[in-house]
Amino acid sequence: MRINILSLFPEMFTGVLQHSIMKNAQDRGAVEFSVVNFRDYSTNKHNNVDDYPYGGGAGMVLTPQPIFDAVDDLSKDSTVKPRVILMCPQGVRYNQKKAEELANEEHLIFICGHYEGYDERIREHVVTDEISIGDYVLTGGELASMVIVDSVVRLLPGVLGNETSHKKDSFSTGYLEHPQYTRPSEFRGLKVPDVLLSGNHKLIDEWREKESLRRTFLRRPDLLVEEQLSDVKKKWLEEFRKERD
Amino acid sequence: MRINILSLFPEMFTGVLQHSIMKNAQDRGAVEFSVVNFRDYSTNKHNNVDDYPYGGGAGMVLTPQPIFDAVDDLSKDSTVKPRVILMCPQGVRYNQKKAEELANEEHLIFICGHYEGYDERIREHVVTDEISIGDYVLTGGELASMVIVDSVVRLLPGVLGNETSHKKDSFSTGYLEHPQYTRPSEFRGLKVPDVLLSGNHKLIDEWREKESLRRTFLRRPDLLVEEQLSDVKKKWLEEFRKERD
Repeated sequence: MRINILSLFPEMFTGVLQHSIMKNAQDRGAVEFSVVNFRDYSTNKHNNVDDYPYGGGAGMVLTPQPIFDAVDDLSKDSTVKPRVILMCPQGVRYNQKKAEELANEEHLIFICGHYEGYDERIREHVVTDEISIGDYVLTGGELASMVIVDSVVRLLPGVLGNETSHKKDSFSTGYLEHPQYTRPSEFRGLKVPDVLLSGNHKLIDEWREKESLRRTFLRRPDLLVEEQLSDVKKKWLEEFRKERD
Repeated sequence: MRINILSLFPEMFTGVLQHSIMKNAQDRGAVEFSVVNFRDYSTNKHNNVDDYPYGGGAGMVLTPQPIFDAVDDLSKDSTVKPRVILMCPQGVRYNQKKAEELANEEHLIFICGHYEGYDERIREHVVTDEISIGDYVLTGGELASMVIVDSVVRLLPGVLGNETSHKKDSFSTGYLEHPQYTRPSEFRGLKVPDVLLSGNHKLIDEWREKESLRRTFLRRPDLLVEEQLSDVKKKWLEEFRKERD
């Protein structure tokens, strides 16, 4: 996969793209990143990339020229039409399904504005996707694009080893994960539940299934489709309800 | 505000915390960051921070000792009880209201796991908040904590200048922002709407209000409370509905 990121702050990306799993993904050839300062594409004599909004008002607006030209240039060697993604609080809410969709693409281009707005012609004629990672305001699109890049790249074949398999992630199984414990079995007087030390794998599996259901019930009841639950799980759910009330 | 981040990959943070608005915020004394590798707190002879899960299963689990001790150490000079935030897909969904809440705190400590799980005793006895930035899976809590830090720090007094005021952000006004245009008035044959070039500020304000409503209707109808709209806006809404159907 090829990923280009357009940003006025390319230095922001070094720490994230050059460490841990993103670094491994590049080393293994699963992905090729480039972060491009779109100011370099400005034909304006002062290399400006923004200007005052027509009609007045506070704030600056990114002009169409540098971004149109940068996307043209980055697309010209591509045999596929790239997905051009604008990071924007008004965009479609990002989720794991969208991550899986993007992981099937060959070429992604991210456009990161900072506190400026975007000229509407960029949205209408260059961009294929406007995406928001959540209902909160960031100082720029940089972090949002890093979030998407991270969640997409880890899905690419060969990027995660077995020990970090994404098969059992939250959101992949439909339930939240059960509590986990590791050594020591007692720390500052706090003990690991006996069942996990019992060596009885039937009981351990049952405990985990139940605690996974409990956590989902308490924290994300929207993920539960009660009709689809087994009778045992329905009984557990009744138990949790009684405990809560 | 004091912010400590516990992570096994402190280098991931340099690009983000040392540029743009996060850098200005530190330079102005509004915030003081430190990124701490909690491996440094491990009393294990190999400096291990994780171990196999009790009860078996794939994946590693972060042990309680290094994180308990790191949080104790970072809290000991604090006159206030810090908020200790675990980045976790099972946590409460982050939003702008939570950002505003955290912006009122004096001391935040973030705990970032990577692909490991957390020993449950960490969640139960150290952590005050478990937060998720959205329904997608990341390789670690690092990016999620950067997202929260960014959204909180920009709200601190003195961090944003006038030109980047957050008063008119999406989510602050209740509607999505209207389209913006800047120079040139024609680019590759694409023109700016005439009204914005008219100089008639009454018409411009009306156009903007209408387009803001239209965008909210099309993209985030959940933000509209129809009963609270003026008659003009109700009429516009009817118009948008007809156009859509």
